[in-house]
Amino acid sequence: MEDKAQIQEAIKIQGEVVRKLKSEKASKEQIDEEVAKLLQLKARIGGDDGKHQFVLKTAKGTRDYNPKQMAIRERVFNTIIGCFKRHGAETIDTPVFELKETLTGKYGEDSKLIYDLKDQGGELLSLRYDLTVPFARYLAMNKITNIKRYHIAKVYRRDNPAMTRGRYREFYQCDFDIAGQYDGMIPDAECLKIVHEILSELDLGDFRIKVNDRRILDGMFAVCGVPDDKFRSICSTVDKLDKMPWEDVKKEMVNEKGLSEEAADRIGEYVSLQGGMDLAERLLQDQRMSQSKQACAGLSDIKLLFSYLQLFQVTDKVVFDLSLARGLDYYTGIIYEAVLTQAGVAPAPAEAQNGAPAEESVSVGSVAGGGRYDGLVGMFDPKGRKVPCVGVSIGIERIFSIMEHKAEASAEKVRTTEVQVMVASAQKNLLEEKLRLITELWDAGIKAEVMYKKNPKLLSQLQHCEESGIPLVAILGEQELKDGVVKLRVVATREEVDISRADLIAEIRKRTSEA
Amino acid sequence: MEDKAQIQEAIKIQGEVVRKLKSEKASKEQIDEEVAKLLQLKARIGGDDGKHQFVLKTAKGTRDYNPKQMAIRERVFNTIIGCFKRHGAETIDTPVFELKETLTGKYGEDSKLIYDLKDQGGELLSLRYDLTVPFARYLAMNKITNIKRYHIAKVYRRDNPAMTRGRYREFYQCDFDIAGQYDGMIPDAECLKIVHEILSELDLGDFRIKVNDRRILDGMFAVCGVPDDKFRSICSTVDKLDKMPWEDVKKEMVNEKGLSEEAADRIGEYVSLQGGMDLAERLLQDQRMSQSKQACAGLSDIKLLFSYLQLFQVTDKVVFDLSLARGLDYYTGIIYEAVLTQAGVAPAPAEAQNGAPAEESVSVGSVAGGGRYDGLVGMFDPKGRKVPCVGVSIGIERIFSIMEHKAEASAEKVRTTEVQVMVASAQKNLLEEKLRLITELWDAGIKAEVMYKKNPKLLSQLQHCEESGIPLVAILGEQELKDGVVKLRVVATREEVDISRADLIAEIRKRTSEA
Repeated sequence: MEDKAQIQEAIKIQGEVVRKLKSEKASKEQIDEEVAKLLQLKARIGGDDGKHQFVLKTAKGTRDYNPKQMAIRERVFNTIIGCFKRHGAETIDTPVFELKETLTGKYGEDSKLIYDLKDQGGELLSLRYDLTVPFARYLAMNKITNIKRYHIAKVYRRDNPAMTRGRYREFYQCDFDIAGQYDGMIPDAECLKIVHEILSELDLGDFRIKVNDRRILDGMFAVCGVPDDKFRSICSTVDKLDKMPWEDVKKEMVNEKGLSEEAADRIGEYVSLQGGMDLAERLLQDQRMSQSKQACAGLSDIKLLFSYLQLFQVTDKVVFDLSLARGLDYYTGIIYEAVLTQAGVAPAPAEAQNGAPAEESVSVGSVAGGGRYDGLVGMFDPKGRKVPCVGVSIGIERIFSIMEHKAEASAEKVRTTEVQVMVASAQKNLLEEKLRLITELWDAGIKAEVMYKKNPKLLSQLQHCEESGIPLVAILGEQELKDGVVKLRVVATREEVDISRADLIAEIRKRTSEA
Repeated sequence: MEDKAQIQEAIKIQGEVVRKLKSEKASKEQIDEEVAKLLQLKARIGGDDGKHQFVLKTAKGTRDYNPKQMAIRERVFNTIIGCFKRHGAETIDTPVFELKETLTGKYGEDSKLIYDLKDQGGELLSLRYDLTVPFARYLAMNKITNIKRYHIAKVYRRDNPAMTRGRYREFYQCDFDIAGQYDGMIPDAECLKIVHEILSELDLGDFRIKVNDRRILDGMFAVCGVPDDKFRSICSTVDKLDKMPWEDVKKEMVNEKGLSEEAADRIGEYVSLQGGMDLAERLLQDQRMSQSKQACAGLSDIKLLFSYLQLFQVTDKVVFDLSLARGLDYYTGIIYEAVLTQAGVAPAPAEAQNGAPAEESVSVGSVAGGGRYDGLVGMFDPKGRKVPCVGVSIGIERIFSIMEHKAEASAEKVRTTEVQVMVASAQKNLLEEKLRLITELWDAGIKAEVMYKKNPKLLSQLQHCEESGIPLVAILGEQELKDGVVKLRVVATREEVDISRADLIAEIRKRTSEA
């Protein structure tokens, strides 16, 4: 077996060699030679026994969900969807792939992470990178100018996966967005209220929601003396402040990005500031900052935002943080990001043991993020008509990881089915009677199972109930059939009572209604 | 505008020309020349105004789901998932793409319809073609020998779409499968029971479930004198009997596939047979058919199956039909397919008007299908260990199409949100009070909305309720605030009552609990 694995590895490497030569349009002879080597390797690994040798795995950066993980996922989704519905959202769905040109020019640097489909004739397609760009395409295509919608679906990024930390190449996004021309900051505040509700309900430990505004960042760069053409590049350096100390960030600004030391120091003062409405007020009075109209507009909106957040009773977790930058190009106003602050809840240590860099494992990472993007829909409209939008995306995979670890640690038994009753028999040759009974139960809407054996042992039927958490067993025997009853057994207490066939359905409903 | 569309069409065509040349590795000069033409076309269509011109559409054969369609989809899913859970199924999920080699050699001819991803370095990947092969890969990879699971997810086929009939390139499959070594025909019968339950509950009109067995087909071909190497090709011709009359099928067998007329006529006699357990019994006595051991094994199993179907009370819709063949390679035993028999429920006529061939629009098409595939998991196991499986797949897109048409025709209003109450104001400057109230409602779990305007008109607030079916309005005014009450308005009756703030939540719950 060891040998086989080695040969398979060699086949993989040789396969890459051949592919590379082909993509480089190497000479036919060269390609043929390497293909021959590949075929030799394949022949060594049981080429002639007629059986294919499969590498039994999922694609890099992806995972299967087993029934236990699905049960946890369903619980998390129910909480999130419940919140979205409480806030009156509709839902839509879009295809997993879009025309390649729909995604082009929306993600800046990150475009290289987009999965393209092979050109098999016809259109050029790419897997969606997020749900926001397809949403904007949907709005423009259908000329929709206001909607409040959620969308839960998988997105695809050819990033370096870090699966133990919940970073995958295929992952779910849970997006809630409000599109429409409305009075300032009301929808924006609702998005933050939603993040607050969801993270509180999921009970993931303490969290904080950082808030900033693209206009404040741009205004700050301007008044600190950053040249216009360096805004974006300096912004992406600021974005590293949650992973690097200020000294290193400053070094990158000065040494790599060519910013003057004075400008960097001025930025350094601002980005260390955190607060609430008071900080926004203070900065509106700040001699330097107040010179930027953009910054002032952003700061006034932060003030207004906080006044609504007070009414929504969520200011305990929200911080105005001037170091928050966020990567995506399309934001135009307020931006926010939620992070878990309780140490130890994240599964980061597991990865540190696997040789991941230590500084990575310290950061718990954001579990939600979003902001205002008033220009994106206009990019799709033939006449450039804008539809203002604000939204939030819940990063569900990290939450799954945490919940899975919690479930494992707590020894709490996660049920993977909802079966209420098992139809069992105490003697042989009762299959037909059991099938007759379970048909009655199914047709009455009772969740019920029967073993697919003609004559299973009673013990194995009871064991199945214990293992999968089925609370009741309806036992048939010769005597019960004669008496027109069913023996109903409570698995947890082993209590048994005879119930008449006519009362059985009501009895099962009664006993499992609060289960 | 007319002009623009024409230029865009020209750009599209020219783009294809360039792509074709590149794929054919044409000379650099030739490619450059055509690229220049393409750029000229692009320049004509507002090249310099800085705005990109997007083709606003989804990829061929795919669709968006709008909120109304999603509401219908959710209802259909709830019915289907409810049935799967009633039968005790767990659920799993697998990635949307698999290693290409995982899908290779599983679909016969249909393999050409698989979507491949572009080779961007790393593994070669393909979008899943169904959920059955990934399920088998999952079982083998995790060494699972018995499980009852459902899986609802999208699959991808580069087929010719016929969207008005619900045939897409991206579409949902709802699969229920039972894996494990069990006593004969019990799980198989449960799969048919499930199809019966789902189609009855969805209320799509009358339906029929055709049943056959691969072993009966093979045995029949053998005793009719079909050469071994022609089984599969003749089988695929038989599969056309639901679209073509027997004469044409026979012609194809004799003229195209080279079968003798006598053999074809013998097959013709068998494939016209339909019945139930009695037909299986009759064929077991049939002089010719009884010569095939395989056929006899299949016929005995059909008998056993019908005995269980009688207990499940579903024989009214199930027909043993010797003309049922089904395309996929991996079936080894019983096969089945459900079709809607009521004329007029399917949206086919719409397509006929659009110029589709008339014979296509007659067939309503199958809405569910499946069978036994005992060999598939073994294809993934390094030692070839088999795990017997039987399952069914519900073809949900056709069902969506029918439900959508029904919803449109019935003028029944489909709600797209579940909002219970709108928080509204009768006078100006009450935004803060409204946000305070809605926070109380949200925190109590009430589904509530407020308009994102500082001073919306009462009329527009009430109109929004009428449009989106919100049953209650909680109206705040100066007087109500003074009195510590809220005016609760019932949208349908226009009845208004003052409710004290303390009682409001309970009152809303009471009034919307049966809504």
